[in-house]
Amino acid sequence: MSRVRVHNFSISIDGYGAGPRQTREEPLGVGGEELHSWFFPTDMFQRMIGNVGGTTGADNDIAARSGTGVGAYIMGRNMFGPIRGPWTDEDWRGWWGKNPPYHSPVFVLTQHARSSIEMQGGTTFHFVTGGIHEAMDRAKAAAGEMDVQIGGGVSTVRQYLEARLIDELHLAIAPKLLGSGEHLLHGLDLTALGYTCASHVPTAVATHVTLTKTES
Amino acid sequence: MSRVRVHNFSISIDGYGAGPRQTREEPLGVGGEELHSWFFPTDMFQRMIGNVGGTTGADNDIAARSGTGVGAYIMGRNMFGPIRGPWTDEDWRGWWGKNPPYHSPVFVLTQHARSSIEMQGGTTFHFVTGGIHEAMDRAKAAAGEMDVQIGGGVSTVRQYLEARLIDELHLAIAPKLLGSGEHLLHGLDLTALGYTCASHVPTAVATHVTLTKTES
Repeated sequence: MSRVRVHNFSISIDGYGAGPRQTREEPLGVGGEELHSWFFPTDMFQRMIGNVGGTTGADNDIAARSGTGVGAYIMGRNMFGPIRGPWTDEDWRGWWGKNPPYHSPVFVLTQHARSSIEMQGGTTFHFVTGGIHEAMDRAKAAAGEMDVQIGGGVSTVRQYLEARLIDELHLAIAPKLLGSGEHLLHGLDLTALGYTCASHVPTAVATHVTLTKTES
Repeated sequence: MSRVRVHNFSISIDGYGAGPRQTREEPLGVGGEELHSWFFPTDMFQRMIGNVGGTTGADNDIAARSGTGVGAYIMGRNMFGPIRGPWTDEDWRGWWGKNPPYHSPVFVLTQHARSSIEMQGGTTFHFVTGGIHEAMDRAKAAAGEMDVQIGGGVSTVRQYLEARLIDELHLAIAPKLLGSGEHLLHGLDLTALGYTCASHVPTAVATHVTLTKTES
């Protein structure tokens, strides 16, 4: 059965998924990029940016689960780009260049309608103004028997957790403090929402945990 | 120079240091005791309760730093016992039996005065009604050249973090979700308070991080 998954979602020791003061230069906010230090050296990421010779091992094995068996993606509008409010710059086509690493439909949550954008390599960005349930319905229809992956960011993952629509959430806890920014879990009672910690793989650079939703 | 330290402070993935609904039977709240699963098998803990043959290795090495070089302790009144409000039961002398594992003065924060209690093995419980600064002054005077250790619980550690009076805080992040309870760091901006993550030792059963305060 098709599942809804989140992968490679990095948080700080104090629970932040992004730092404060997000800008075009620092899209993850001050200090936010450091949360992903475990990910950048991996073979998975290095291949994504056209390199070879990345690290193998547990971090890479876990990182590489992202995208596997996935037929459609959902992301928040702030993950798609730095523009807030109306689409004043229609030339913005995401952070990922002409051939984004999704190779399937990507449903972008936004309050501002925009025509779909077909990219190279099979990625098409669709802009969904009807909320998280509409985006999920469209992503599931597009994915068919395959899984739906939620890319992020914090606000999007929080909304889907609260709606109990995520089956599997991989968190990478980085050995960093952020102090402020976007907190992933504050105010969400994951136990009451039916989640448990199903796996725990610590490495030298991150602690990987997978939270899964028990059937209710 | 004498330092103020916290050791073996366990929190859940979602940041709780104790679970909800604390009772005499479950002093750490529902699910709270599980946060310490990494600690119970260690040689350090097993010796503390009179056994031999506990585990050695990184978890034990880290656990055993607790108490080393410590000349006085501070703890919150809820860590000392389950009684709330006035001391209706003067027979309560802590959770630890006749010979508590402190072997030095222990300053208990409370709003209700009570005479000091001299226990076996060098532990004396003193009850401090003047707040966290008075407790710290008295603990430092008692410790002399040695360090002061803050035992807990969550509220006590939070207050001393906010006052920037903790030099070193060892957290053990357990691979558990609690969902609710007492959150250790919510609303505290540790970066602004001057803390950084100084060490990171992941093991099969917990992720150990040490946060230290930079001088200002």
